[in-house]
Amino acid sequence: MEERTFYLPKGFRYAGVHCGIRPNTTKLDFALVVSDVSGVAAGVYTQNLNCGAPVVYDRDRTPCKGIRVIATDSGCANACTGKEGLFNARKMAEYAGEAVGATGDQTLVMSTGVIGVQLPMRAVAQGAELAAAKLGTSYKDFEKAATAIMTTDTKLKVVSRETTLPNGHTIRLAAMCKGAAMIGPNMATMLATIVTDAALEPADAQNALRAAVEDTFNCVSVEGHTSTSDTCLLLANGASGCPTLTGADLDAFATALREMCAELAPMIPNDGEGVTHLITIDVYGAPDRASAKTLAQTVANDALVKTAICGADPNWGRIISATGRCGVPYDPSKVSLKVNGYLLYENGAPVKFDKEEVSNSIRSNRDVSFEIFFQEGDGKIRFWTSDLTQEYVHLNADYTT
Amino acid sequence: MEERTFYLPKGFRYAGVHCGIRPNTTKLDFALVVSDVSGVAAGVYTQNLNCGAPVVYDRDRTPCKGIRVIATDSGCANACTGKEGLFNARKMAEYAGEAVGATGDQTLVMSTGVIGVQLPMRAVAQGAELAAAKLGTSYKDFEKAATAIMTTDTKLKVVSRETTLPNGHTIRLAAMCKGAAMIGPNMATMLATIVTDAALEPADAQNALRAAVEDTFNCVSVEGHTSTSDTCLLLANGASGCPTLTGADLDAFATALREMCAELAPMIPNDGEGVTHLITIDVYGAPDRASAKTLAQTVANDALVKTAICGADPNWGRIISATGRCGVPYDPSKVSLKVNGYLLYENGAPVKFDKEEVSNSIRSNRDVSFEIFFQEGDGKIRFWTSDLTQEYVHLNADYTT
Repeated sequence: MEERTFYLPKGFRYAGVHCGIRPNTTKLDFALVVSDVSGVAAGVYTQNLNCGAPVVYDRDRTPCKGIRVIATDSGCANACTGKEGLFNARKMAEYAGEAVGATGDQTLVMSTGVIGVQLPMRAVAQGAELAAAKLGTSYKDFEKAATAIMTTDTKLKVVSRETTLPNGHTIRLAAMCKGAAMIGPNMATMLATIVTDAALEPADAQNALRAAVEDTFNCVSVEGHTSTSDTCLLLANGASGCPTLTGADLDAFATALREMCAELAPMIPNDGEGVTHLITIDVYGAPDRASAKTLAQTVANDALVKTAICGADPNWGRIISATGRCGVPYDPSKVSLKVNGYLLYENGAPVKFDKEEVSNSIRSNRDVSFEIFFQEGDGKIRFWTSDLTQEYVHLNADYTT
Repeated sequence: MEERTFYLPKGFRYAGVHCGIRPNTTKLDFALVVSDVSGVAAGVYTQNLNCGAPVVYDRDRTPCKGIRVIATDSGCANACTGKEGLFNARKMAEYAGEAVGATGDQTLVMSTGVIGVQLPMRAVAQGAELAAAKLGTSYKDFEKAATAIMTTDTKLKVVSRETTLPNGHTIRLAAMCKGAAMIGPNMATMLATIVTDAALEPADAQNALRAAVEDTFNCVSVEGHTSTSDTCLLLANGASGCPTLTGADLDAFATALREMCAELAPMIPNDGEGVTHLITIDVYGAPDRASAKTLAQTVANDALVKTAICGADPNWGRIISATGRCGVPYDPSKVSLKVNGYLLYENGAPVKFDKEEVSNSIRSNRDVSFEIFFQEGDGKIRFWTSDLTQEYVHLNADYTT
């Protein structure tokens, strides 16, 4: 990632610091994203009933006006922590807000890390002070914030866009995310912070974010475990000088947002723990979009499919069988499948193919494509997942306790 | 397994032979179970839409009277094989029936093995002849049949019961099953054949079998992939001399059947590929039984939960989080969890416990117990699964193509 290609929205400052939330390491573990002026915030959250305290805190507030700060820690998820956890999430917002001359009510919070452990509030208070003192506007500052929210991620996940709207104004969007690999000894978590200098009404911001997330972050999976802490926040501060977006301008913004998220989302399974292949699954001709998603998701989370790709095995029976077990009704005699462009199964019957050639194609490409064709309707979707390797099991079984 | 403790129903003969369905091996791969007289057959089958041809064949016929033979091959699932597969399933029934002096219509068939490959019909014909010539009534013959249906199973899975009914008659039940680990390079498959010398009406046999399967085989999982071929058949020949069961006698039979299946079912995940722990999950206080099953099944199929147990990590956050992601509504502040009897989470908040002690308890016991308590209703269930090990990935990724 080179700085010159990265578009930073106006009127935001960033910092990432180490404050000791993760003991015995020097990894950056506290991030601040601060808008110079109050902005509009939207959020999309995990559907897990045991959601983290920061999810409860943010969800009660968004969408709304008046937000200036997003504070994120990595190392402690503040999930399954009862009333003390809710108190601490509120306190973290206050520490972060007050450190930058704002208030707790102007601050949203995100946490990722071990479940069931209370936030070390002394470290959080220190993190807020340290980060506030280091806020800056450069790409390097943005990168530090993005680094500070990472857990077992091995690669930085940041994207940006600059778009000229139909009204002639130019706006910028930038996003950072982490996950969805495991963390410490614990849970997969996906966090994302998106900032823009466009001006938006809260309801429009929320609608655009929800639509973008549904087609992007909600279409990735490593092992299908919706975490306690998944959060995607959007903060729009209007610093571009552009009037509040409506009509075609709002549509153009929503498109840019969705495209940016679609670039960011597959970075998550591509950086999954132990991953050797990123699998893109395209489903066509399902009864409807929801059915297409169920079909793709079932294939994406199937241990047999994922181990086959790890072993470069064009084992199409596992893929077809996975689609048949998910409850979506379809005619099995009208299903076809391509892997990396090779037709392996056509209208419910095997096709002769060169097994060695397809196996080599999988082995020599990190990106693997499944195209699954039904003849039921116009439901389609693109979904991303990873393969399942021994290293994944090793990381999640042996690096614990 | 010693012969003297095994109760064989009257009027059945068994054989298991090698006929070459699996090339390059001498493993027994063809089994016959033959009743001297026509019996009543019931069946419960996979819900996978891409079910194997034998499933289609048997499902069209059961429950019914007039069945004498169950023929099973291991090595080829005859699934995703189109019209040729359906023709071959019918042909396999004819070969087997005619070899023992019965007909194809008196024969049911099961197949397990690679998906998408046509049955080698010359080997099947030879298997029927060879097995017919070796039919016998001893436990050794039963064991050979049970061995011939195994694929990557490492342990024989057989159980039996002798029960004296309220009417004073004594009946016997015996069962064999295979799976649900992987096979060859391919799909998990669970097959079971149950024989009894009780006399039953077809509808009663079907109801008793369906109820037993729902509480037993349908409550096991290795990785949640419902195969193309899962089949459980019951053949009741009435050779005990007992009158056709009704009322309290039928209830007593159904109880014996369910208890026998409950003994057999956990043998499947306990013999899962690479497995080092059998996990028994008890859910209490769910809204209803279906919810209890969804909760238990989600925990059972969770890669994070399964890797944690592989690593002897009392990582309760993963278990609690898994219950929260499955869509069953409950109050998260009223959930408690015990692992191997240790209380780790109580009413939505962490409990202090000796991590090393619980870890040692997991490490030193192959059997691991989860008890998850909700306060929503009286829904409860017992579910069995395995841990997820590097060896599982190795077997399914690296021993292929």
